[in-house]
Amino acid sequence: MAKENQFVEQIADINADFPQWYTDVVLKTKLVDYGPVKGTMVIRPYGYAIWENIQKELDSRFKKRGVENAYFPLLIPMSYFTKEAEHVEGFAPEVAIVTVAGGEELAEPLAIRPTSETIIGTMMSKWTQSYRDLPMKVNQWCNVMRWEKTTRPFLRTSEFLWQEGHTAFASAEEAERDTLAMLGVYKEFAENCLAIPVLTGRKTDKEKFAGAEATYTMEAMMKDGKSLQAGTSHYMGQNFANAFDIQYLGKEGVLEKAYTSSWGVSTRLIGAVIMTHGDERGLVLPPVVAPVQCVIVPIAARKGGVVEACEALKAELENAGLRVAFDNSDNSPGWKFNEWEMKGVPVRIELGPRDIEAGKMLLARRDTLEKLEKPLENAAETVKELLATVQKDMLEAARARRESRIVYADDMASILKGVDEGNFVKAGWCGCRECEDKIKEETGATARVFAEGESRENCAVCGKKSEHVIVFARAY
Amino acid sequence: MAKENQFVEQIADINADFPQWYTDVVLKTKLVDYGPVKGTMVIRPYGYAIWENIQKELDSRFKKRGVENAYFPLLIPMSYFTKEAEHVEGFAPEVAIVTVAGGEELAEPLAIRPTSETIIGTMMSKWTQSYRDLPMKVNQWCNVMRWEKTTRPFLRTSEFLWQEGHTAFASAEEAERDTLAMLGVYKEFAENCLAIPVLTGRKTDKEKFAGAEATYTMEAMMKDGKSLQAGTSHYMGQNFANAFDIQYLGKEGVLEKAYTSSWGVSTRLIGAVIMTHGDERGLVLPPVVAPVQCVIVPIAARKGGVVEACEALKAELENAGLRVAFDNSDNSPGWKFNEWEMKGVPVRIELGPRDIEAGKMLLARRDTLEKLEKPLENAAETVKELLATVQKDMLEAARARRESRIVYADDMASILKGVDEGNFVKAGWCGCRECEDKIKEETGATARVFAEGESRENCAVCGKKSEHVIVFARAY
Repeated sequence: MAKENQFVEQIADINADFPQWYTDVVLKTKLVDYGPVKGTMVIRPYGYAIWENIQKELDSRFKKRGVENAYFPLLIPMSYFTKEAEHVEGFAPEVAIVTVAGGEELAEPLAIRPTSETIIGTMMSKWTQSYRDLPMKVNQWCNVMRWEKTTRPFLRTSEFLWQEGHTAFASAEEAERDTLAMLGVYKEFAENCLAIPVLTGRKTDKEKFAGAEATYTMEAMMKDGKSLQAGTSHYMGQNFANAFDIQYLGKEGVLEKAYTSSWGVSTRLIGAVIMTHGDERGLVLPPVVAPVQCVIVPIAARKGGVVEACEALKAELENAGLRVAFDNSDNSPGWKFNEWEMKGVPVRIELGPRDIEAGKMLLARRDTLEKLEKPLENAAETVKELLATVQKDMLEAARARRESRIVYADDMASILKGVDEGNFVKAGWCGCRECEDKIKEETGATARVFAEGESRENCAVCGKKSEHVIVFARAY
Repeated sequence: MAKENQFVEQIADINADFPQWYTDVVLKTKLVDYGPVKGTMVIRPYGYAIWENIQKELDSRFKKRGVENAYFPLLIPMSYFTKEAEHVEGFAPEVAIVTVAGGEELAEPLAIRPTSETIIGTMMSKWTQSYRDLPMKVNQWCNVMRWEKTTRPFLRTSEFLWQEGHTAFASAEEAERDTLAMLGVYKEFAENCLAIPVLTGRKTDKEKFAGAEATYTMEAMMKDGKSLQAGTSHYMGQNFANAFDIQYLGKEGVLEKAYTSSWGVSTRLIGAVIMTHGDERGLVLPPVVAPVQCVIVPIAARKGGVVEACEALKAELENAGLRVAFDNSDNSPGWKFNEWEMKGVPVRIELGPRDIEAGKMLLARRDTLEKLEKPLENAAETVKELLATVQKDMLEAARARRESRIVYADDMASILKGVDEGNFVKAGWCGCRECEDKIKEETGATARVFAEGESRENCAVCGKKSEHVIVFARAY
C-alpha cells in the first residue's frame, strides 16, 4: 500500500536495510546534505529548523535553572589538553589542528575544540575569586570538531553543533546533585519534546567521559534495536579544578578548590528522532519540534473559494501559534499527501469544496495514518488538541516498542541472541573490565547504562557474583 | 560629580583616552574577557545576552522576508578560495589553516571559514536545479575567523560571531533589489533596536568586498568621531555563480546562471552600541537589547515590607515581559546605583518605606540621569513607556550628535582638519583611485560611503570635476 507512491520508492525498505533507509530519508527530505570535506554535513533549512526548535525548548529550561549563555574561543592551545591526563588521552587522537594562520607558522599548534572543559576551566579559574561567585553555570551553543573515521549525517560527523554546559560548585554534593538534575532535564525534554523514551543512569568507567569521575547518560532505542547515547552529564569531581586551578576564597578565608560538571546534547538528537519514529514512508516528526506542524492540502483547488478557505484556515492556525504550510503547488493531491508524509509533518488537513460546504475538514495523522473528519469551526483548537494527542501517543508507542524489546540474559549466548534480535539486554556483571571487554568482543554490544535498583545472581560472563545489572546493546 | 564613585574611578576618562575607556568598560562590566590565544575573546554572559537579543530581533526580520536558516561546514578546502580571483586575494592572507586532523597530515589543507561564499556557492550549485528553486535565501548564525594583527574585543578579533545571509536569484534586478532591501533591514534594526543612526549607501571599489560587484554599507559614528562599518550587503552579480557553477534550468528550458548576494552583521555591533552611547560612568544600553532593562534597588531594605514590595514589583514587571533585576545584595544603595549605572541598565527603580507608604516609586533614567517620581499603580505600563521613551531619545541624541559632526571640505587641509576634530567629512571626489589613496595617506581617513544625491563642484584632491560626494572618516 505504502509502496504505491513515488516517494516511498526512493527510500530503501526500513525493515530490509535500516542504514540505507536512514541515508535515503535524511537526503530525500532535505534535512541534510554532504559537505565537500569528508565527514562533514550541511544542515539544510528543514533539518536546521528542527535544531532551532530543540534549542528553544532546551534553552528556556537551562535559563530557568540559572544557567547563563556565553561564548568561548574555538581554538585551544594544544598544551591545555595535556593538563588533565585522561582528557588528553581521550581527545588528542581526534582533534583537528591549526598550524598556520595569517600566513605564518604558529609557535604553538591550536586545536579546534572537541569539547571545551579545558578552555572554560581556564576562564573559570580567573572568574571564581570568592565563594560568592559560586555556583557558576555557563552554557554555550556552538560547533565542535572530532575527526572520525566512519561518519553518518547527524549521528557522527567530524563537525557537529551542540550545547555544552559547564558548572563550578563549592561542594561535591551540590555538583553531583546538579549533574543528576541536568540529566533529569534532558530526560524530561527527550520524552516530552522529542517523544523519545530514555533509560537514564551511570556509565561504566570504561564508557565514561575522558576526565570525569562519573558519566550519566540517557540512552534511546532506535527502531533497529540499537542504542543511541542521546545526552550525557558528567561529574568531574576536582579533576578539572586541579588541572586548571579553579580556586576560590571560601567563607572562612581559606583557598578552596571547586567541584565541576559538564553536560551536553548535540545535533545527534535529530538522528535519534528520525530513527525512533520514522517508518516506511519516511520521517515522522513529533509536533513540538516539527518545522511544519500541519500542512493544508486543497482538494479541487481550482474550484471557487477553496484557495481562499485554505488561506483563511492557515491564518487562523498561525494566529494560534501553530507552524503551518499551505501546499498550493501544481502537484496532485496524492503527490502532496505522499511528499508531506515523507517529510513527517504530524497532521495533514484536506480541504475541498464539499468540506467547505459542509463546514468540515479532514485531518490525517502522520503517526497512525488515521483520518478524522472534524468541524471547521474552532479549527485551531481542534488541531492543537490533535497535535498534543499525536505527541503523547508517539511517546507511548515508542515506549511500548522499547519495553517489548528489553530482555534478560544470564550467559554470553543469550546476550548475543538478545542483541542479534535487536533488543536491549539486561545482564548481571561482576564489575571487572575483562568481562565487559569480552561482551563487546563476542557480541558487539557495549555497556550502555547501569540498571539501577535491579539485581541478578551471577555475572553473565564469568559466573561470579553479580555486582550490577547493566543494559547491554549495540550502539550508534 | 561622576568621579565620586568607585566604579567610575576604575574607568579611564572617556574624553581623555577613548580607547582605554573602551577597554576598561568592556572588561569591568564583564561583557567580555581575553581568550588565551592572542586576538581571541570570551563573550561573557552579560555580553552574550546582548548578542542573543540582537539575534532575536534580526532573526525574526529575516524570517519574515522568507530567509531560512541553515548550517554549513566550518572547514573549507583551500582550493575553493582560488575559484574567485578577487576573493582569494582578499581573504587568503587572513585565514587560519588546518593541516593535521585525526593524527594525520591532510592531503589538502583546510581553511577555517573567514566567510562562506565559496562553500555555500558550492552547495547552491547542487540545489538550484530549476527556476522553481529560486530565489534561494539562506542564512547562518556562526563563528568565523580572520587572523588579524591588531585586535580589540568585539571590534576586531581573530574569531567572531556573525550571521551571513546568502541568496541566489534568477535576475540581476531581483538580486540588486534584495541586496538593497537587506541594507534597509539592517538600517531599520540599527536605528530602532540599537538606537544607532547610520549612513547607508555604496562603498567605493577600493573598499568593497573581495569578489563583489558592489558593496553597500551602514556606517555609524562613534563618540570619538570615528566611523564603524556596522553591516554590509554585497551584490555579487554573476561572479560567484560563474566561479561555482550556480546554474539552473530556466522557464524556457535553457541553462542559466544565477545572480547572488550576501549580507552580514557581527558581534561588532556590540562594540558599536558601547561606543555610540557610553559615557563617563560606563555603558548606556538601549532598552531593546539590554540584558537587564530595569533594576530595582531597595532603600532601607531591612525595614519591614521593602523586600516584599520589591519582589512583588519585580514579578509584576516580569509578567509584563520586561527583563528585570532586583539587587538585594548587602551593598549600599549608593554602591548599587553606581554599579548598575556602569552596567548601563536603562532604568533604575528605587523603592523605600516612604515610597511604598505613598504608593510611589522613583525612576532614574540611565541615558539622561533624570529622576522621576511615579505612582506604583500600573508600574509595568509606566516603566514600559519610559523604556520606549529612553529608546527613542537615545536614537535622537545620537543622531543630533552625529549631525553636528558632519562637515564639508573642498581641499585636503580641510579634510584633515575635519577628521582631526572628530568629524565625518563630506568631500567631492573625481572618482580616481589615486585621489582616494592620497586622502588615506595624508589624513588617515577612508572613503566610508557614497553620499547619494549630493553634489560638489570639484574633487578635494586634484581639483578636477567632482563625480561623487563621499563621506570620509577615520574608522574602526
